[in-house]
Amino acid sequence: MRFIAFFAALCSLVSPASADPLPSWLATETKAAIVEFVESVTDPSSSDYVTPADRIAVFDNDGTLWGEQPVYFQLIYAFDRLKQRAETDPSILTTDVLKAAAEGDLETVAAGGTEALLEILAVSHSGMSVEVFQEDVRAWLDEARHPTTGMRYDRMIYQPMLELLSYLRDKGFQTWIVSGGGVHFIRAFAEEAYNIPPEQVLGSSGPTEYVDGKIMKLPGIDFVDDKEGKPVGIDSRIGKRPILAGGNSDGDFAMLEYTTGGEGPRLGLLVHHTDAEREFAYDRKGHIGVLNRGLDEGSELGWVIVDMANDWQTVWPE
Amino acid sequence: MRFIAFFAALCSLVSPASADPLPSWLATETKAAIVEFVESVTDPSSSDYVTPADRIAVFDNDGTLWGEQPVYFQLIYAFDRLKQRAETDPSILTTDVLKAAAEGDLETVAAGGTEALLEILAVSHSGMSVEVFQEDVRAWLDEARHPTTGMRYDRMIYQPMLELLSYLRDKGFQTWIVSGGGVHFIRAFAEEAYNIPPEQVLGSSGPTEYVDGKIMKLPGIDFVDDKEGKPVGIDSRIGKRPILAGGNSDGDFAMLEYTTGGEGPRLGLLVHHTDAEREFAYDRKGHIGVLNRGLDEGSELGWVIVDMANDWQTVWPE
Repeated sequence: MRFIAFFAALCSLVSPASADPLPSWLATETKAAIVEFVESVTDPSSSDYVTPADRIAVFDNDGTLWGEQPVYFQLIYAFDRLKQRAETDPSILTTDVLKAAAEGDLETVAAGGTEALLEILAVSHSGMSVEVFQEDVRAWLDEARHPTTGMRYDRMIYQPMLELLSYLRDKGFQTWIVSGGGVHFIRAFAEEAYNIPPEQVLGSSGPTEYVDGKIMKLPGIDFVDDKEGKPVGIDSRIGKRPILAGGNSDGDFAMLEYTTGGEGPRLGLLVHHTDAEREFAYDRKGHIGVLNRGLDEGSELGWVIVDMANDWQTVWPE
Repeated sequence: MRFIAFFAALCSLVSPASADPLPSWLATETKAAIVEFVESVTDPSSSDYVTPADRIAVFDNDGTLWGEQPVYFQLIYAFDRLKQRAETDPSILTTDVLKAAAEGDLETVAAGGTEALLEILAVSHSGMSVEVFQEDVRAWLDEARHPTTGMRYDRMIYQPMLELLSYLRDKGFQTWIVSGGGVHFIRAFAEEAYNIPPEQVLGSSGPTEYVDGKIMKLPGIDFVDDKEGKPVGIDSRIGKRPILAGGNSDGDFAMLEYTTGGEGPRLGLLVHHTDAEREFAYDRKGHIGVLNRGLDEGSELGWVIVDMANDWQTVWPE
């Protein structure tokens, strides 16, 4: 008996697969669908087996891996920095939109649409090297706190999604971020927060220039990694159709459609924000993370809709 | 004695490091410099040790990993396809430049400069999905042969560089292609030729569009991954400064400068085409692979200049 117990203990050490890889996911159909997919594409004896080179998983960031309410966290960073710089040098606030942003007046900024956002990003996100920008993002993450949760922004990441990323990597997947957010912004924290290295982060980007050995950020946006831009970005950067895609809004529809439209086994995941108590509840209406098509058509397309309130045991990391 | 022999045999099995990882490189200072660099950055007890995540090596393609004479192989593909399509439908040759290209009249095309090239690429490289384009490139590689060597283009790859790529990967490096050539073109053969997956290939690119579940190639060029574009592309796609860069022309100067300009140990490599007998001899003059600044300033910058005639035992794979 003692020998058997020892042997069993040894087995549990060498086969961690027997442990639940997704402890923060409740034992629902959602979890079963995810595990079943991952097991089938990684089982060499399965007809659904996918070679490791093709195990590409892509995830949206805002609202899928971390929070996005009351507005994208990157915008809060932009407003904070604009305000801070204007305190030293008010002359940088050359337009009404910039003045509104520095005062945190979201309504005026929102009324200005894309052009207003570009103006704000031009002042807060350019005119410096990528290295200096990313150091500044990290400094901001150290000091800034979310207005309602009081948490660090880079701790407002979803524990169940962290477990999913880790589970996928353990199973030989590459885990990529494909975000509408700025690529340099996300790379500043993705490695520490998600264990995703810079080369597996894709996002929107502005023009840059190589000057005196450095990469300088210039004003403007030359690639918007959102909606139809997501499959375009995936082709451009990864060059392969993923087999798993996770998102949470209609900005991710094309990415999930592209992913699950390929031959063979595919998984599309949508995180549905149903949890007003532990996080936020929103879907069809609002200015951030709007989800209509995904709810209307997702199930028919075979996508798995994650019900945050009922599928997740916990939301945030300890 | 028998036991010792067995033990030695066992050691040679478990420590392949004792075998020469670069058998096609002659025992010159060049080879010593490469091996010394790789050993030092991968030796945990060395002050030059670099963590695996930062072991990024980038290589130009044309003239560095495969041949580029008499013109870039991708251009030969473009001319071949233009000619072929014009045979079925001569009406596609709407300009003098296109007519010249279909006749293989390089001089007229060259005289037309970049605009002429864009015209040719617009007809030969767009209006189809990425998948269809890449299948066509592979079909062309199967049938086309180099005008002077008679070899398949995808066998005109440098055996010593294949060994270097493999040696680096064995030592925990990521090996990336950073080429002025088209990203979709290179990805069509890079995995088979170099063991480099699509997601580690960066190149020039045209606009694409997501339509009906496919990525369609549109006319035009929106990113030129050459000269100062190489560090810009590296920042955009990889997001880290490499520690090793290999090139062969002044189009690679900025990439090597950016790479070797970082802190800590860095290696810049330039392949100097000195071998008229086994390959081609060219450097300061011509229309392809011009190398002036690299020869003038490279040694002073500590870059290793590979003398193809005297550093390489063989040029092509068996």
